[in-house]
Amino acid sequence: MPSYQTVDLAKSYRLLNHGPTVLVSSAHGGRQNVMAAAWSMPLDFNPPKVAVVIDKSTFSRQLIEASGEFVLNVPLQPQAAAVLRVGSDSGLDVADKFAASGLVAAPGHAVAAPHVDGCAGWLECRLIREPHNQQQYDLFIGEVVSAWADPTLFVDGHWQPIHDDAKRTLHYIAGGHFFTIGATLDVPLPE
Amino acid sequence: MPSYQTVDLAKSYRLLNHGPTVLVSSAHGGRQNVMAAAWSMPLDFNPPKVAVVIDKSTFSRQLIEASGEFVLNVPLQPQAAAVLRVGSDSGLDVADKFAASGLVAAPGHAVAAPHVDGCAGWLECRLIREPHNQQQYDLFIGEVVSAWADPTLFVDGHWQPIHDDAKRTLHYIAGGHFFTIGATLDVPLPE
Repeated sequence: MPSYQTVDLAKSYRLLNHGPTVLVSSAHGGRQNVMAAAWSMPLDFNPPKVAVVIDKSTFSRQLIEASGEFVLNVPLQPQAAAVLRVGSDSGLDVADKFAASGLVAAPGHAVAAPHVDGCAGWLECRLIREPHNQQQYDLFIGEVVSAWADPTLFVDGHWQPIHDDAKRTLHYIAGGHFFTIGATLDVPLPE
Repeated sequence: MPSYQTVDLAKSYRLLNHGPTVLVSSAHGGRQNVMAAAWSMPLDFNPPKVAVVIDKSTFSRQLIEASGEFVLNVPLQPQAAAVLRVGSDSGLDVADKFAASGLVAAPGHAVAAPHVDGCAGWLECRLIREPHNQQQYDLFIGEVVSAWADPTLFVDGHWQPIHDDAKRTLHYIAGGHFFTIGATLDVPLPE
């Protein structure tokens, strides 16, 4: 299990910049939950913000609206089946989606919401309440207040080339299908 | 050059679902422009909507706000240097970013904004004006009104496994660094 290291907040957007599918974890009133979200993106650099789509039908949404917090975790290839599982089950039906999926919750640092262990990293977020966006588009905006990453994958704000397939991020397609992230491509900067 | 085929609108979100960096093309008043955006995502299935971050400093933003239209294009590995170029230059300084980058504009179908040829596909979008989001977050929402894809890559709404590196989508990291998309990973659906 990697020992996570803190990520400079101004570089934290890079954990999401390449478009990985994320796990959204949340907690409130003695319950915690985790769901999958293919629809998230960075929204600002500094202070860092993120956007994520959270459907009205989800238990996670209840926890996030009540607590005003969520964590975006960047899962890796060995977690693909669990990502699919927590993307299919609902916390309204399953008492403990962590237990049901085999995902392991770890304590949050700046938020009460848990992390998902074994991920490339996580972004702890405080909800910026935007009722129109939440109601109209299921769109949730958060400010990143703390970020951590696996130091074998993300060093000083930079992704490292990935040679171990077990360390590849997941990019959901549909059904039971994902892409995993591939090679790095380095292009000379324009003059 | 592939002959693009129309994509069922209800499946069009899948062109963005795996998190590729996109090219945003736009046109108004006799000018056209193209910029890079790592920050975009699907926002709804049907009618399909997308979200994309367009900085206040960009010429593209002027064209999009004036025309109420934009196109999200999904570029491929051979276009990486051009993506970096149009992500660095501004249409406020460069009269024709297509010419300067070597990207080729193709006529739009349902919108006046051009496509970028040689991409995996494109989503033609009509801006859903949300002044608060645009001002506060540089966040633009569009309804997808037409979508097309390279039929060697995307068939009947499904991405095909990619064996040709020249057909890999780009996932921007920072500086001159991209990931390209990797292998497909198929996971049994939960019972």
